[in-house]
Amino acid sequence: MRTQVLIVGAGPSGLLLGQLLHRAGIDTLIVERQTAAHVLSRIRAGVLEQGTADLMDEAGVSARMHAEGLLHDGFALAVDGVRHRIDLRRLTGGRGVLVYGQTEVTRDLMAARDAAGLPTLYEAAEVRIEGFDTATPRAHCTVGGEPVEIHADFIAGCDGFHGVCRASVAADAIRLYEKVYPFGWLGLLSDTPPVSDELIYSRHARGFSLCSMRSPTRSRYYLQVPLGERVDDWTDARFWDELRLRLDPEAAAALVTGPSLEKSIAPLRSFVAEPMRFGRLFLAGDAAHIVPPTGAKGLNLAASDVRYLSQALIEHYRERSDAGLDHYSARCLARVWKAERFSWWLTSLMHNFDQEPAFQARLQEAELDYVLGSEAARRVLAENYIGLPF
Amino acid sequence: MRTQVLIVGAGPSGLLLGQLLHRAGIDTLIVERQTAAHVLSRIRAGVLEQGTADLMDEAGVSARMHAEGLLHDGFALAVDGVRHRIDLRRLTGGRGVLVYGQTEVTRDLMAARDAAGLPTLYEAAEVRIEGFDTATPRAHCTVGGEPVEIHADFIAGCDGFHGVCRASVAADAIRLYEKVYPFGWLGLLSDTPPVSDELIYSRHARGFSLCSMRSPTRSRYYLQVPLGERVDDWTDARFWDELRLRLDPEAAAALVTGPSLEKSIAPLRSFVAEPMRFGRLFLAGDAAHIVPPTGAKGLNLAASDVRYLSQALIEHYRERSDAGLDHYSARCLARVWKAERFSWWLTSLMHNFDQEPAFQARLQEAELDYVLGSEAARRVLAENYIGLPF
Repeated sequence: MRTQVLIVGAGPSGLLLGQLLHRAGIDTLIVERQTAAHVLSRIRAGVLEQGTADLMDEAGVSARMHAEGLLHDGFALAVDGVRHRIDLRRLTGGRGVLVYGQTEVTRDLMAARDAAGLPTLYEAAEVRIEGFDTATPRAHCTVGGEPVEIHADFIAGCDGFHGVCRASVAADAIRLYEKVYPFGWLGLLSDTPPVSDELIYSRHARGFSLCSMRSPTRSRYYLQVPLGERVDDWTDARFWDELRLRLDPEAAAALVTGPSLEKSIAPLRSFVAEPMRFGRLFLAGDAAHIVPPTGAKGLNLAASDVRYLSQALIEHYRERSDAGLDHYSARCLARVWKAERFSWWLTSLMHNFDQEPAFQARLQEAELDYVLGSEAARRVLAENYIGLPF
Repeated sequence: MRTQVLIVGAGPSGLLLGQLLHRAGIDTLIVERQTAAHVLSRIRAGVLEQGTADLMDEAGVSARMHAEGLLHDGFALAVDGVRHRIDLRRLTGGRGVLVYGQTEVTRDLMAARDAAGLPTLYEAAEVRIEGFDTATPRAHCTVGGEPVEIHADFIAGCDGFHGVCRASVAADAIRLYEKVYPFGWLGLLSDTPPVSDELIYSRHARGFSLCSMRSPTRSRYYLQVPLGERVDDWTDARFWDELRLRLDPEAAAALVTGPSLEKSIAPLRSFVAEPMRFGRLFLAGDAAHIVPPTGAKGLNLAASDVRYLSQALIEHYRERSDAGLDHYSARCLARVWKAERFSWWLTSLMHNFDQEPAFQARLQEAELDYVLGSEAARRVLAENYIGLPF
């Protein structure tokens, strides 16, 4: 088989890239190790920056997002039982975020790809990529037991942190930066009305919690838990009890509980691979970088990579200019590292770090006190939360 | 001997407290281990926040400060050879800082104390304080070989990090927080015109440097050096050569060198003791907290302690209310910890940390990039630099 751009991975990055390139008349083929149903079963973030929503518009897949997504003008930081509102709209000169689940983004993109009749090889096993440092990159895989060979001009590695693309790069050609946090997030999804119209990030002596939502009838809650915690040890009742203890009194009283639709524990990690381009292979999204979820930057960073990559590829095919491709890695990484910094900072600010020296804990308290009391500091928080400019 | 407030230490904290109390009609006695000349020989910071300058006004000792001090509207952050101005006046709605050496502050306060005929026991040896948890605190020392016993209503511990006051508190009554940085500052004072009208904080691959000044003809420069460096290994020529390498090209070309008047290495430390009040003993300034010098907060924090303490003591004697004394520790510490946070942050942002994981170094670069590019972030820097509100 032959395509212009082979996309490895049918998550939101790969699908969005495929859609943007399709609208520019560029052929893509997506290979995905899993089934479509499996991809859709992964519960991820749900806060879209304006820039991400704009890209969905550009890709022509934003009708349901605009109809069902919830515009949020602010969120709350709760500190030891007292809630403080961060007024995004006022602090950023009129901007906000859109609450719309990553799963829904993926679903909309899959539907658009199907409608356009664009090829996706699901359940592609044993994917290998090669020759990306030459003019003729190739991939091999098996689909339904049959070997498939794919020739492409370019390969886009949108296959996530555990994907094959980054792993195919020679060790001496890539530098990895990583920080692992001493805790994870236990998440619970339920068909219950959200405890508040806006997200609540709570710092509490018992640990961080986040009250989030997917819709007016579907809630997503998270609890900071120690590393090594087992999800089986958390009954729904235990989860709700613990969450209630960490909320401010008003939220605790308003909390509506119900059976979990999904419950899982995710470790918190900061990770960046440099560079993000290797010849004709371009990494995008989680394949190149991971942020802890505290700032809701994961999907948004993937979208900004895809924005740069789609522009660069369109420039290549339309204008025969490789300037965008040549700058891809540096442009992405400048934005990635700022989002890494913000995600690390907000994580550090809101979580309990029992192992840290007491000096750090006091600095954390002072910083919270300062952030909540300073207009300029709240503005810094807000402008990062809505997404830094491209 | 008997006094209302015994002040231990004739540095700027003790002298300023003495002057403020004197103007309110409260008796003080200062005991100081060193000679006045020795106290004046210590070269320290030279950047006064507006609030500190206001307190000098209130103490009636600000004539020379206003005549000779240099009003600064901004300063520069230089990053890898490129200088970026932080416009304090614009960013903070019209505020700035006053460059006036701590040594000059001390000299003015000593002169005022002498002029008022207020008692200071210099070269007071073997100072001991006791009974501060009772209604009758006392101190003992020897002056000129003669034992002296002093009775006071209150004791103000203004005797610095190595002083006797904090050390006299029972270990289980005090909690200490500390962070030691893996480097020090090598400082050089010279009678040469400053390289720039404004301070330049430089981040460079060879290490941090600071170009500061005391007057239009006297400069103070600093270099980040590894711990364990010996001042004897730094000739003046070596200092100037190394400084020139770390400056932006314009500053390097403009640098006027000359013989050093003083050269010394200071370790960088963050330190806080909690609480700051123990019965009738009140710690103020370096006796209770140390900041790394990067944000120029040391003297300013001491002044804000003295502000709270003088107000509290005046309230006690005039209005027979102990509310201020009861709140002293909490009021000070709220401000202290914010200044600790800022000083730690600016130190972390501008120095080389060779021992830190590469991830942290990249975050540092991203943060610099962000701070220099964001109006809100520069405002955060500026409002902390000029001093947070009381």
